[in-house]
Amino acid sequence: MTSRREALRRLGLAGAAAILPRQLWALPLSSPLRINGERLNATLTKLSEFGRNPQGGVTRLAYSEADLHAREWTMSLVREAGLRTEIDAAGNIVGRRTGTDASRKPIVFGSHIDSVPEGGNYDGDLGSLAAIEVARTIEEHHVDTRHPLEVVIFQNEEGGVVGSRAWSGDLSEQDLANVTRSGKTIREGIAILGGDVSRLASVRRTPGAIAAYLELHIEQGAVLQETDTDIGVVTGIVGLNWWEVTIDGFANHAGTTPMDRRRDAMIAAAKFTLMVNRVVTSRPGRQVGTVGRIAAFPGAPNVIPGKVVLSLELRDLDAAVIASLYDEIVENAKKIGRENGTTFIFKATNANRPAPTDERLRVAIEASARELGLSTRRLPSGAGHDAQEMAHIGPAGMIFVPSVGGISHAPNEFTKPKDCVNGTNVLLQTVLRVDAELP
Amino acid sequence: MTSRREALRRLGLAGAAAILPRQLWALPLSSPLRINGERLNATLTKLSEFGRNPQGGVTRLAYSEADLHAREWTMSLVREAGLRTEIDAAGNIVGRRTGTDASRKPIVFGSHIDSVPEGGNYDGDLGSLAAIEVARTIEEHHVDTRHPLEVVIFQNEEGGVVGSRAWSGDLSEQDLANVTRSGKTIREGIAILGGDVSRLASVRRTPGAIAAYLELHIEQGAVLQETDTDIGVVTGIVGLNWWEVTIDGFANHAGTTPMDRRRDAMIAAAKFTLMVNRVVTSRPGRQVGTVGRIAAFPGAPNVIPGKVVLSLELRDLDAAVIASLYDEIVENAKKIGRENGTTFIFKATNANRPAPTDERLRVAIEASARELGLSTRRLPSGAGHDAQEMAHIGPAGMIFVPSVGGISHAPNEFTKPKDCVNGTNVLLQTVLRVDAELP
Repeated sequence: MTSRREALRRLGLAGAAAILPRQLWALPLSSPLRINGERLNATLTKLSEFGRNPQGGVTRLAYSEADLHAREWTMSLVREAGLRTEIDAAGNIVGRRTGTDASRKPIVFGSHIDSVPEGGNYDGDLGSLAAIEVARTIEEHHVDTRHPLEVVIFQNEEGGVVGSRAWSGDLSEQDLANVTRSGKTIREGIAILGGDVSRLASVRRTPGAIAAYLELHIEQGAVLQETDTDIGVVTGIVGLNWWEVTIDGFANHAGTTPMDRRRDAMIAAAKFTLMVNRVVTSRPGRQVGTVGRIAAFPGAPNVIPGKVVLSLELRDLDAAVIASLYDEIVENAKKIGRENGTTFIFKATNANRPAPTDERLRVAIEASARELGLSTRRLPSGAGHDAQEMAHIGPAGMIFVPSVGGISHAPNEFTKPKDCVNGTNVLLQTVLRVDAELP
Repeated sequence: MTSRREALRRLGLAGAAAILPRQLWALPLSSPLRINGERLNATLTKLSEFGRNPQGGVTRLAYSEADLHAREWTMSLVREAGLRTEIDAAGNIVGRRTGTDASRKPIVFGSHIDSVPEGGNYDGDLGSLAAIEVARTIEEHHVDTRHPLEVVIFQNEEGGVVGSRAWSGDLSEQDLANVTRSGKTIREGIAILGGDVSRLASVRRTPGAIAAYLELHIEQGAVLQETDTDIGVVTGIVGLNWWEVTIDGFANHAGTTPMDRRRDAMIAAAKFTLMVNRVVTSRPGRQVGTVGRIAAFPGAPNVIPGKVVLSLELRDLDAAVIASLYDEIVENAKKIGRENGTTFIFKATNANRPAPTDERLRVAIEASARELGLSTRRLPSGAGHDAQEMAHIGPAGMIFVPSVGGISHAPNEFTKPKDCVNGTNVLLQTVLRVDAELP
């Protein structure tokens, strides 16, 4: 069942609402507005040509030639969708469509088209092209929305959600000086993209400046595929904390030092790694913990390591869970240290606070999927997205579609064409539903 | 109790043996010949000046300026001891003293004076200067020995017992091309030292070419100090085997991959490291096992390691023990792999066969120490020494003296002056005893 206002809007009959009998409005809508699936998938194929690797997938690093060419083509697509198109001061591509109510804040939807080195053809690309396709469908059907609509293609998501951080006001002078994977600083990159660092403050949006932000994305995990679910309703983007952990033992001759006289930092590191795994998995929930980097010193086969430096990463949707896991890990590390004469030092190196999505948007996504006959499942996003920054500005929602094999950031990243179409239709319906229901 | 022949030899009275009454020969020798302890320790201090580091200890890499200057000074010391001195074709310093029996093979004793980077003042230095002091004492007291005596200062022990491998015939063309820590190849190094690679075959000694080899060395471990023992009687130089172990898992996004869907090579590496420790310590004996080097790939805090490469080293005096430990480790690694979806590949990268010392020499060292009122303890050498190569040529024996704190290959490597003197006196007495007792 849909609201009468919404039903009519979908049919491009918003103006007729006043003259239709009430009972008609209450009827279920048998054929909601749909996007052009063939066109969507054709644009995905076309975008995959920019920065294509010989072995498949793309390397389309932010600020590279491939990025610039892809952006040029993407902007033309935004224009074809009938949107007023500009590059904002931060270098993001923004396409605007006026709403019927001048007092409303915009509904923003989009993603990014930059990639990691040897990345795939769906991460960011799908959400970007889906946003354009949704706007184009709305335009083609002459649907009036109360809210203005904004399609956004954020720049340099893979280098640390740079474009959306400019919007949330989280891009510091120091960030601008950071050298990105393409070899250019972010400051240089913004200029290359046609932005203007001197006017960066102009793109900042204060909390409440948007009606909602919606982003379609591939899951980058295997939960949807393994549970045979069409649509993931993202409960939030998990927070993450990184620590550099230094374990000090005593370096000594591996031949002359008996086993019971060693203060082996490698043994302590091994115990630590397994302990982190145990602590993280010993309570219910979707929290994850990873030791991804390790170095032993002096690092010779015939010397007992006197020092090991490793990375610890913890992620969860609830910052309190991360804090509690960390406390338990530190406590257990002390025990390991006492056992074999080593000491642990933890140095925090990075932190992203969790960004829960808006419950009203989750419900809207679920309702839209249901209407389209698609199954849904709620799940957190383990990866970072521009939506995490947008959640600080206004209500944010994310729609996931299945990643085959859960593979991402790799050439064989793949999402089936029908799932791309499903996700884009859910995005379209959710935009219309949000336009009807949210202030 | 000592033999009559031996007693008289020690007193420089070998010639008197025939005219002394038999009952006198059977008396215990109250005052065996002693080295000049003050002189020995003064030479140790002097040698420490060559390549001295600002923070203490020495960096006297083979073929470096410091090595060349130290060798020049050491050669002058060998000459002062009354020995015919030469640099052999392999670049070793050899000092010779004629024996009374022209048919006898030489008793060889010595060590090395090159060091590791930022090494100490006792590893090699003590054994070298002790050998010279022993020869000098014998010369000063006009003691005749049946066997010729040879003092040897082997070149580049720290770079892989290069000088003694030239003697045992184990120095290949490929070895000669290896670049050493001083930046020079071994071939270049031999020329720098005054050797002659084209005549390398001339230094080779076939098995049986020596009567015995004896080497005094610091323990480089803490067993003697902790058991309050004066003299270590080395049972052999342990063999060692190195493997490069590659663990293949599956690299994936640390945020989007749930804990129960990971094939984390780091977890497998941690289990492996602890398993090696458990296998090595779960049976009696002095075997040791070490994981000293590790690298995780791709090696980012936010990526589950898909590959880990680490080193495995096993040492024991018995090659069969090493083989059996290795088999048990491989078997257990397979289990770990099955548990978390990883595979282990073992690649042998280095092997030194164990070199047991000669039982007659162990007994001679023990008898000499006992006579000097010194306590002894049998123990293996966990570190490699030139003696391991010499054991392939003839009977080899090693005398250890305590290392304070077990520290070696470091500036704070230290052995007490009295222990240096004790060890050198044991070396002297053992040389004389071997001269008397061995063919």
